[in-house]
Amino acid sequence: MGKLFAGIDIGGTTAKIGLVDENGNIIVKTQAKTEKNSHWQAIMNAYIDPIVQWKNEGKEIVGVGVGGPGAFDKNRRVLKTCVNIPPLQNEPIIEYIEQRLNIPAFGDNDATCAAVGEHIFGAGKDFKNFIMLTIGTGVGGGIVLNDKVYRGRDGFAGELGHVVAVPGGHLCGCGNRGCIEAYASATAIINEVRNGITRGSITSYEGIDPETINAQIIFDKAKAGDTASIHAVDNAASHLGTVIGSFVNMLNLDAVIIGGGVSMAGNFFLDKIAFHTRQIAWPLFMENLPILPAKLQNDAGIIGAASLILEEEK
Amino acid sequence: MGKLFAGIDIGGTTAKIGLVDENGNIIVKTQAKTEKNSHWQAIMNAYIDPIVQWKNEGKEIVGVGVGGPGAFDKNRRVLKTCVNIPPLQNEPIIEYIEQRLNIPAFGDNDATCAAVGEHIFGAGKDFKNFIMLTIGTGVGGGIVLNDKVYRGRDGFAGELGHVVAVPGGHLCGCGNRGCIEAYASATAIINEVRNGITRGSITSYEGIDPETINAQIIFDKAKAGDTASIHAVDNAASHLGTVIGSFVNMLNLDAVIIGGGVSMAGNFFLDKIAFHTRQIAWPLFMENLPILPAKLQNDAGIIGAASLILEEEK
Repeated sequence: MGKLFAGIDIGGTTAKIGLVDENGNIIVKTQAKTEKNSHWQAIMNAYIDPIVQWKNEGKEIVGVGVGGPGAFDKNRRVLKTCVNIPPLQNEPIIEYIEQRLNIPAFGDNDATCAAVGEHIFGAGKDFKNFIMLTIGTGVGGGIVLNDKVYRGRDGFAGELGHVVAVPGGHLCGCGNRGCIEAYASATAIINEVRNGITRGSITSYEGIDPETINAQIIFDKAKAGDTASIHAVDNAASHLGTVIGSFVNMLNLDAVIIGGGVSMAGNFFLDKIAFHTRQIAWPLFMENLPILPAKLQNDAGIIGAASLILEEEK
Repeated sequence: MGKLFAGIDIGGTTAKIGLVDENGNIIVKTQAKTEKNSHWQAIMNAYIDPIVQWKNEGKEIVGVGVGGPGAFDKNRRVLKTCVNIPPLQNEPIIEYIEQRLNIPAFGDNDATCAAVGEHIFGAGKDFKNFIMLTIGTGVGGGIVLNDKVYRGRDGFAGELGHVVAVPGGHLCGCGNRGCIEAYASATAIINEVRNGITRGSITSYEGIDPETINAQIIFDKAKAGDTASIHAVDNAASHLGTVIGSFVNMLNLDAVIIGGGVSMAGNFFLDKIAFHTRQIAWPLFMENLPILPAKLQNDAGIIGAASLILEEEK
């Protein structure tokens, strides 16, 4: 079986944990509950225990990568911010993993892990300069430049969801106004439609309880030709085009990768994003610049986290 | 005198040419007219002749750096775009310099050269991750990441002036709408005031011919408390804050450097830019992040161009 790389993808309610081989295949995986109100060591034990067990079974695990919902420090050892799971913040969680397993560990922001995963195993394999936007409940980002993840001064780089799309625009969860996250996340798209229904300006959702509306329903209705839904999707794509086009003019990228739940809508959404990006990015910069869906799907979180170890060996 | 580095700073009407020593001091300098309508070799000869002469005088010139008003290719040998001096576009100008002088030569966008100059000799000396905005007639940019100039896929990276500040906003010289250049360049600030005078909404410039108004006059009037001028300056700073704040959230920078004519207004302008940047960039990212004026002043163009050679040796 050869060398294996453990990945822990920490989420607010559960963590996904697995072992990945050198080809990016999941060998074994499991889940563990995130006990938000417990002591940080108890939370971490739930994640580490399965790996200890796999190790005891004789699996050759060479390192552990951790993807977390927050910002790790430059040495990738401590979550400096972790709004969703406060007990983990500022605790030596990576050191603790190393102590319990006696192998090296690294942590990084989950969207950065996703970019690392795509770079090593997925849609970013052939590219040296790309950004990846992970569009789900929020909008996360990862940046690969000169064939390496770019982490910046403190290790926090890649907060692409908090680039301003509309100055003075919608209030964002981060407290700022106009961030692209407030326009293009699933949450934002859903709110756009719900608000229209509530104020009576959207009438094409009759018979559907606004509370049950999710991104999937909106995309399906858009694909079926519903004007209101097409507008909601195009509005998100247009703001994405503004910021992605700006990124392209700024960074002269090789590619742009779109991941996360919303990207599952496929070409219907990607084509719109590409159209709007072309309205902003200069033609010379857009030549042969693909806007691609992420390749890693279901287990992207585990593979991305495990990829942090492969990245070290690269 | 030791090793010397030649710098050619190509402009639409004149080029500045000089020799720089290892400490960034100008040893000798001159100017040459840009004969826009001549053959590219004739244009280049006017720039190269002084260097040939200095070489013949026995000066130990180890290389030639060229800053051009356009985008050089990845190998930094050919201007792929050069709107201001069309004959130079797509010609082997760097190869020609090497042939005439028999020493290595490199070319890069003038704003990128400015960033290289600041990185080696100026305000960027102590920083590994910074952007430099050159605010003059237009807005140029240079990006230094992981202690090296970031050039991107084709060598075109750094077009920070064409990042969108206002979606669907003012028409920019590049054909796009809403670029930061259309809001924060000297040209944009002057137009803002001139338009106000023309339509009668700005009355505090009575007795001043709108055609004679330049950025210096506007900044002086703003410093003296004129509401209309303060607004024009603050409006530019506010849009700069939006894009710089976005850059900070994206790239987790060490510093931001502001150069070009408009930056000569000093802290009056920089303080406003810093204020607006803080409204967008996250506090953790803004901690100890200086927004600094460029250090190299009069001969920045020559020193920046010459720095391309020093950068190679770094």
